[in-house]
Amino acid sequence: MSDHPLRRLIEDADRAIASKDFDALMEFYADDATLVVKPGINATGKEQILRAFHAISAHFDHGLKVWQGKMEVIEGGDTALVLMETVLDYKTSDGYEVSTTRRATYVFRKETSGGWLCVVDNSYGTALLDQ
Amino acid sequence: MSDHPLRRLIEDADRAIASKDFDALMEFYADDATLVVKPGINATGKEQILRAFHAISAHFDHGLKVWQGKMEVIEGGDTALVLMETVLDYKTSDGYEVSTTRRATYVFRKETSGGWLCVVDNSYGTALLDQ
Repeated sequence: MSDHPLRRLIEDADRAIASKDFDALMEFYADDATLVVKPGINATGKEQILRAFHAISAHFDHGLKVWQGKMEVIEGGDTALVLMETVLDYKTSDGYEVSTTRRATYVFRKETSGGWLCVVDNSYGTALLDQ
Repeated sequence: MSDHPLRRLIEDADRAIASKDFDALMEFYADDATLVVKPGINATGKEQILRAFHAISAHFDHGLKVWQGKMEVIEGGDTALVLMETVLDYKTSDGYEVSTTRRATYVFRKETSGGWLCVVDNSYGTALLDQ
């Protein structure tokens, strides 16, 4: 499934994050999407999501890069569940380079135009159950 | 989130599986839903899903019981991503009782009636990436 059109879309979003183009990033989300900012804290709607990405970017000192690994897509109805290895590379405040791998779960909705919009962005995947 | 209405819905579906009432079970799925039967094999649409459940039930010698543990629900747009500890209890062909825990990922869609229908049923969760 690695050639699914959603891979390119997600990689475009990663580039927007790396280049801090958060207005472009918002184009990937439905108006009523939800982003899991961190376990227990969700942002719903573009205004909250935009604010969350500014805060996340500042937290990572603007050095956050996101890479995608293996991917599985399961389409059902007008939605797609995406399971994806997501690698986050960043520097700690004392200069160490860190690489963290998560297994993300994303839900996309197919629009009448044929395009996809993200409705649930949960980079923590089933690890949310660890709380 | 353990008191989300989707928990009761999913537990009702579990009871339908335990009692082999697969026609009742189909009421939980959207017409165009997808069930991950096993890694690499999906069933799409009620006809395929019904056939898959008959095969799964026969495979487990009609002794399959499904229980739900911890649950997280993330709603975005008219969809909900459900992350759930799912326990499968069954007997092997030589009579041993087996209990397997998975971390399932389900996607539900809210209908205009206000009810929820399952559009993606993936009891394997992100373990699908292990293939």
